[in-house]
Amino acid sequence: MSAPNPTAAIVVIGNEILSGRTQDVNVRYLAKRLAELGIALREVRMIPDEREVIADTVNALRAAYDHVFTTGGIGPTHDDITSESVAAAFGVPWEPHPEAWALLSRHYPPGEFNAARQRMATMPRGAELIPNPISVAPGFSIGNVHVLAGVPRIMQAMFEALAPRLDRGPPILQRAVHARGLLEGRLAAGLEEIQRRYPMLEIGSYPYYRESGSGVAIVAKGTDTEAIEAAVRDAAALIESLGAEPVAGEPAL
Amino acid sequence: MSAPNPTAAIVVIGNEILSGRTQDVNVRYLAKRLAELGIALREVRMIPDEREVIADTVNALRAAYDHVFTTGGIGPTHDDITSESVAAAFGVPWEPHPEAWALLSRHYPPGEFNAARQRMATMPRGAELIPNPISVAPGFSIGNVHVLAGVPRIMQAMFEALAPRLDRGPPILQRAVHARGLLEGRLAAGLEEIQRRYPMLEIGSYPYYRESGSGVAIVAKGTDTEAIEAAVRDAAALIESLGAEPVAGEPAL
Repeated sequence: MSAPNPTAAIVVIGNEILSGRTQDVNVRYLAKRLAELGIALREVRMIPDEREVIADTVNALRAAYDHVFTTGGIGPTHDDITSESVAAAFGVPWEPHPEAWALLSRHYPPGEFNAARQRMATMPRGAELIPNPISVAPGFSIGNVHVLAGVPRIMQAMFEALAPRLDRGPPILQRAVHARGLLEGRLAAGLEEIQRRYPMLEIGSYPYYRESGSGVAIVAKGTDTEAIEAAVRDAAALIESLGAEPVAGEPAL
Repeated sequence: MSAPNPTAAIVVIGNEILSGRTQDVNVRYLAKRLAELGIALREVRMIPDEREVIADTVNALRAAYDHVFTTGGIGPTHDDITSESVAAAFGVPWEPHPEAWALLSRHYPPGEFNAARQRMATMPRGAELIPNPISVAPGFSIGNVHVLAGVPRIMQAMFEALAPRLDRGPPILQRAVHARGLLEGRLAAGLEEIQRRYPMLEIGSYPYYRESGSGVAIVAKGTDTEAIEAAVRDAAALIESLGAEPVAGEPAL
């Protein structure tokens, strides 16, 4: 990974992930988009809806990385406690946010902006809103922590609204070449040699098992386009030298 | 969550998850199976293939939870460094494991048990093998840390081979009731009251947006079957009191 890429961590907040009820898909979306924006995702934590755990996790990660993204726990019900927990993490009051309050009180019919919904307009002091073009109730940034919804469609819309505000680095690219029928144990020595030749890249090796046949995908990742091209060429040559046919790109599903 | 359930954390090891190349599906599988076995999954961390990060993460989590499961990074290539990193975490030598060595040297044709494959038979001293009925190379347990493959089919087979060795608690059950067309903001006050009535349960509220219509699913989770039944009945009554029809179970996809 080249030096100038800002770093990031994701905190997935929600008992429904830890119980297996819900398959998380937000991490992958954010991972891809962050790479495109030149932000290096370094860690993900999935934690329960518990105030102290959320506050401690946010504090540990905001000290370690340039950006922290949280998903989940910003709705109106009793188990939605991300916002107040982030306020606790920053040691600031959790209080009505004038702009969010105005937005939501306009949105609901008279008498329906109830106590539960008012919680969605209550935020850590100093929070900057992240617009929600899908369901109105906004996310927010405070310091380097960006608080997003858990529902994927809403999370994605919020992230895209936030993206222009994020400082970024050179895009992190990856290219793959794969070979059917080859085993990792035969590729390993040559691949290690390729990794040594391109220390600015991450060279990964991923066996796959598909209906259409098994094999190994080799992935070169980094910010140096020429090095990525060269490493993929070297990997293709390695595959050929072992009597298999290199195929550009990822294996089909 | 009732007291007698042992706790667990999962460490997903792999750059391919953090780059968005691969959608993790192991967390959900393990989450469901652990709940069935009465083991409470408390935290998941997804981290890169880096020795110090792996060792530090394993050490933090094995001190905090009864069980730690790792997935990924136990193949033969240069980026497979989970095993040596776990040895570093425990401060024990990383050395040929006689049983694994015998298994793998028998498995490969003469001359093909090469240096890369020998790494898959090299383990922290004191490791106890976890059988791999799919592709032979075993996982292992050391202390309360269980090292599994990353490929889902192999990970699952290893986990099932390991499961009988794990100490467990009463099964953690969940039941759901949902209502189409209802908004969380109308349910919130009543739901908080239900959570107060059943402090031994986790009551969760999850909005959904499906082609067939949106709504809210209410989930009661815990080890007390009677309390779960009663909480779901109360949630159904709450839904009816708001003029909607409660439907047992999760909303269809």
